[in-house]
Amino acid sequence: MNLSIVIIGDEILLGRVTDTNSGLVARTFAADGWQIKSIRTVSDKADDIRRAIEASLAESELVISTGGLGPTRDDITKPVLTSIFGGELRMDDAVTRNIEAIFADRKLKLNELTRLQALVPTSCRVIQNRLGTAPIMWFEKDGHVLVAMPGVPFETRGMLPEVAAEVKGHFGHGGVVFHREFTVTGISESALAQQLAPFEDTLPEYVKLAYLPNPGEIVLRLDADYTDHNEAESFDSLADRLVLALGDRLTAVGKLSPAELLIHKLRERGLTFASAESCTGGNIAHLITEVAGCSDVMLGGVVSYSNSVKTDVLGVNPADIEAYGAVSEQVVRQMAEGVRRITGADCAVATSGIAGPGGATDGKPVGTVWMAASTPEGTEAALFHFGGDRQAVIDRASAQALMLLCSRLTTV
Amino acid sequence: MNLSIVIIGDEILLGRVTDTNSGLVARTFAADGWQIKSIRTVSDKADDIRRAIEASLAESELVISTGGLGPTRDDITKPVLTSIFGGELRMDDAVTRNIEAIFADRKLKLNELTRLQALVPTSCRVIQNRLGTAPIMWFEKDGHVLVAMPGVPFETRGMLPEVAAEVKGHFGHGGVVFHREFTVTGISESALAQQLAPFEDTLPEYVKLAYLPNPGEIVLRLDADYTDHNEAESFDSLADRLVLALGDRLTAVGKLSPAELLIHKLRERGLTFASAESCTGGNIAHLITEVAGCSDVMLGGVVSYSNSVKTDVLGVNPADIEAYGAVSEQVVRQMAEGVRRITGADCAVATSGIAGPGGATDGKPVGTVWMAASTPEGTEAALFHFGGDRQAVIDRASAQALMLLCSRLTTV
Repeated sequence: MNLSIVIIGDEILLGRVTDTNSGLVARTFAADGWQIKSIRTVSDKADDIRRAIEASLAESELVISTGGLGPTRDDITKPVLTSIFGGELRMDDAVTRNIEAIFADRKLKLNELTRLQALVPTSCRVIQNRLGTAPIMWFEKDGHVLVAMPGVPFETRGMLPEVAAEVKGHFGHGGVVFHREFTVTGISESALAQQLAPFEDTLPEYVKLAYLPNPGEIVLRLDADYTDHNEAESFDSLADRLVLALGDRLTAVGKLSPAELLIHKLRERGLTFASAESCTGGNIAHLITEVAGCSDVMLGGVVSYSNSVKTDVLGVNPADIEAYGAVSEQVVRQMAEGVRRITGADCAVATSGIAGPGGATDGKPVGTVWMAASTPEGTEAALFHFGGDRQAVIDRASAQALMLLCSRLTTV
Repeated sequence: MNLSIVIIGDEILLGRVTDTNSGLVARTFAADGWQIKSIRTVSDKADDIRRAIEASLAESELVISTGGLGPTRDDITKPVLTSIFGGELRMDDAVTRNIEAIFADRKLKLNELTRLQALVPTSCRVIQNRLGTAPIMWFEKDGHVLVAMPGVPFETRGMLPEVAAEVKGHFGHGGVVFHREFTVTGISESALAQQLAPFEDTLPEYVKLAYLPNPGEIVLRLDADYTDHNEAESFDSLADRLVLALGDRLTAVGKLSPAELLIHKLRERGLTFASAESCTGGNIAHLITEVAGCSDVMLGGVVSYSNSVKTDVLGVNPADIEAYGAVSEQVVRQMAEGVRRITGADCAVATSGIAGPGGATDGKPVGTVWMAASTPEGTEAALFHFGGDRQAVIDRASAQALMLLCSRLTTV
């Protein structure tokens, strides 16, 4: 079955805000077997909203829209939805109570404009939005469903699991082709294959299990194609059996980011972490601290953008900067070991490179990055040449540094 | 005139990669007077690509597509374009030379698959892509233009100015409604109004100049509506005259991000900067070092995620952490002053807060953030309560901390 996504809002259409809702919605429903058909981004104008929703309903059984529901915009999207799905706008008591509770909780005074958020079409069923004042609205027409969600990213992130559960309750599973990924660590591919052999022997022919090895982890991908297999074992049951067969080798359902994988490996070994960053400028520490609950392994780090911070805070030998340059094996090794010394961390990564656009020298073009990973067993340094502009070099060097330390923590 | 954008690629449609190209294209052309009509994201399937491009051409004079042009995908998008615009695929010598030059430059061996990137429809005009091997293709039909660009973000970022210039050369300006923003610092709103009075007196009635004051800056917005004014002074000429009238008060064309604004203010005063981050975890340093050429003001920073790094590296008094908690005015003040002391920076910001989802205590709910801004004139601390989840709290606290220091560097 098809899912179309409609993103409503001038701020996204005009590029003032980067849309992250569509990706989240797509990932969530693709994992449940839905075929993602299209994403349409449109303005706050009634005609554009109507055309996008009607085209989406025509091509897909399920349409998820986000945005267009703020207190100052109710006059736009809700009348469009009423004209498509019928009914009329009326104040909903449960929504009013939800809005009042949210305002009481935030100790804010409720104004009339916000109260109007409780005005919803009689043709919809409301899913209470626990994270904001704009109600989530469920519409049905000719067997097709539209769920209108608010556009505030943390409300979408927070409420999407509940919406996905309602969709599952309504449609059963979304389609005929399912897939889910599982991250496994601390075991070699051949040992894992041996462990999973009994499970694999029970798999029906419409199910495939693929091994995708990465540095420091193996991603397992379970695929099922239910075409002509309606009465077969459910995908959730297959996935549950795989989880059981993996036992404590299962690190996570889904594919972990490099930062999540590193945190897992450090935690498993009871090791702490710190970063020493020059060209990545704090992005490595940011990627780690974005992950909730990282504080048992993350002590902190130093952004040693200038040479003075490298020498004065991290203890890098000024003579080595002079002799080899700040972008050198000698300097990144001392940065990694220096940040371990001053923070007391068991492990560290360090980066020093030329992110560009300026700073290139003979023999060290833009994209040249030295990095080091230091553990109680020693320090390893590596040289990379990344393509792309400043942002691309920072992103790639950050991910690579995390994977370099991950690969040092692989004991099989 | 209308612009429609088509984003081609499974990886974006399925949410594996966040699309940033559409926002960049939209911002670039909106500033040139184009009305952004829609953004369509579609799969790599020929039928979906065809429908999206045809619907876009039907509603807009200009269509920009990105993606679908990689060496492994040439069999999909290019035949679709050939069937829409006519002609046939042939090897283009200039593109071949461009590809060979790029590979020679990167010291890579050229394979046959990459050579095929030089296969382009005879119905298009090629704009050479200096940053990659996929050619940029300009098609025309019934007065409407499609420009097919590659999907790699740094190639789109790098080549877009050239494409925008070609579009300007072809269409003249994009529409009848133009706007451009200018950032002005170091002057009060009333003094600026006085300085600009002679310029404003010369403005025709179809041009408006708006003052949008923010902490530490004034954004000027120049709007012109040329409806029924085809023979009037061009928007570029109006903008040039405003730039002249602003003189050295003009900080930047466009609206600066908080990090760009802070760097400008520090540079103007010859001051250096460092950050001391707990809950923002390195994001402030990352926002600063993302900006090319920041090294004259950015010395570095400390991510003091654990209390031990706060005390051992930044010199925060352990008794104060014990007495007031790590999230307190006393601690952020000492963090800001501590990072100035160890890095030698003139100015610093510090953050300590509860990003969540865990860590809330009585009286300090998730979203509570103490921050400090320290300059040679002294240290100021402020308490904020941010809404949203972990990511939202980190983003908002980072921007607010930068603006807190900006506002301390305002001398009018």
